[in-house]
Amino acid sequence: MSKYSQITDYLVRFLENEVTKTGLKKVVVGLSGGLDSAVVAVLAQKAFKDDLVCVKMPSQYSSQSSLDDADELCRDFGLRNITCSIEPMLSAYEAMHDDLNNLRKGNVSARLRMTTLFDISACESALVLGTSNKSELMLGYGTLYGDLASAINPIGDLYKSEVFELAEYLDVSECIIKKPPSADLWDGQSDEADLGYTYAQLDAAMKLYVDERCSREEVIAKGIDEKMLDMIIKRIFGNHFKRKMPVIAKLTSRTLGHDFNYPRDITL
Amino acid sequence: MSKYSQITDYLVRFLENEVTKTGLKKVVVGLSGGLDSAVVAVLAQKAFKDDLVCVKMPSQYSSQSSLDDADELCRDFGLRNITCSIEPMLSAYEAMHDDLNNLRKGNVSARLRMTTLFDISACESALVLGTSNKSELMLGYGTLYGDLASAINPIGDLYKSEVFELAEYLDVSECIIKKPPSADLWDGQSDEADLGYTYAQLDAAMKLYVDERCSREEVIAKGIDEKMLDMIIKRIFGNHFKRKMPVIAKLTSRTLGHDFNYPRDITL
Repeated sequence: MSKYSQITDYLVRFLENEVTKTGLKKVVVGLSGGLDSAVVAVLAQKAFKDDLVCVKMPSQYSSQSSLDDADELCRDFGLRNITCSIEPMLSAYEAMHDDLNNLRKGNVSARLRMTTLFDISACESALVLGTSNKSELMLGYGTLYGDLASAINPIGDLYKSEVFELAEYLDVSECIIKKPPSADLWDGQSDEADLGYTYAQLDAAMKLYVDERCSREEVIAKGIDEKMLDMIIKRIFGNHFKRKMPVIAKLTSRTLGHDFNYPRDITL
Repeated sequence: MSKYSQITDYLVRFLENEVTKTGLKKVVVGLSGGLDSAVVAVLAQKAFKDDLVCVKMPSQYSSQSSLDDADELCRDFGLRNITCSIEPMLSAYEAMHDDLNNLRKGNVSARLRMTTLFDISACESALVLGTSNKSELMLGYGTLYGDLASAINPIGDLYKSEVFELAEYLDVSECIIKKPPSADLWDGQSDEADLGYTYAQLDAAMKLYVDERCSREEVIAKGIDEKMLDMIIKRIFGNHFKRKMPVIAKLTSRTLGHDFNYPRDITL
């Protein structure tokens, strides 16, 4: 049995358990046309069948190929899906802020998608599934309160290169697996160009530094590029705030985030 | 020296320290015209002077008195402020979803304000200050990834009734202190009507149950209404997910939120 057969079974069970214990039965996934959301949608369909709603949220900056790829995924797997464009909201915001650069526009877009997806989840009594992989989460390559926001994330402990392999195991179409990873926030954006290295290079280094707990020196001794590793370490710690709740000034004997610390799934 | 003089000094120092260690120098506060954001803005001004930008983000549903109260606060304290209405974005969303009820509209509004405020913070190289008090945070009376989103929250360990007293100490104008607390998400909304009890009642119970760690039975023995207490306990645990990061399926030896758990302010 392949590694990814086991991982698939485990993740499907994880999704079932985590959703069931909230008392809800449905999930929503934002489909970008990219690899990560495709894998999450296919996993979610195995767990929830028709209780999965995929939401396509294009903007005027989405590439046609992303829209086509999302459509093909829905056809290939028979995914129930709806479209809610963020274009009207984004255009309204742009009209008020004529100085928006690509980075700001990308972050606003990610947050308008979060706003839309959480509203649809409320309307459907569903939970929002996250689609951030471990490479993005570690490097902080994502928008806080945007694409990083979700209730449950099945792929947050899989590096991007592993998500590729899982997608192949799940029979996600080649057009999605083969294209260069992109947040698709502006024309021609490429994750690997933004980050300066390929995911294969980045993930190999992070597996040693994060998962194997090797020191910086040990990672370098294993042949990893020093300059890249220092960039990775800087990003991991510089973006750590994206993985933590806001900090609250402590004034009493029991403060949220300090000493009021129940597990996330506490029940009465 | 009054209790609130000490608290003010402590919170101003907290804000200075937390902002300084990020390397940034400025903060932004979303001003609603209500009590919490007024107190945060006045504290922030003591810490940052002109490096505080207050952002008013009205919608078509904001009451005129809220706008007037925010303006008066800015005049009274000489707060640097700008206005970025969320009305165009909200109208664009409403036009696409004609089934929005008040609750969904309120949550969408809170998230559009978050989107706006974080964009302005990026533009200003500033940090977003949170304005949720301990009553709201404990009861889950707020929008996840909306008004609950921030970088630093100076009043998250003060119950609403204490924020009132701090506001009086800080000389916030009577019109803000005297009006009934409201999220102002729709006309005539009242926190205390939504929650079914006054903040004085709720806070007295929470101080015993949360801060003093009294059991349910001990709190009731002290004269707290049983029905209200059960509602509070149900809300505290039922909304705990709003105080925690998304849950990630564990697959490796080091998973975010499981065993990759540095403090929020870790540095290299």
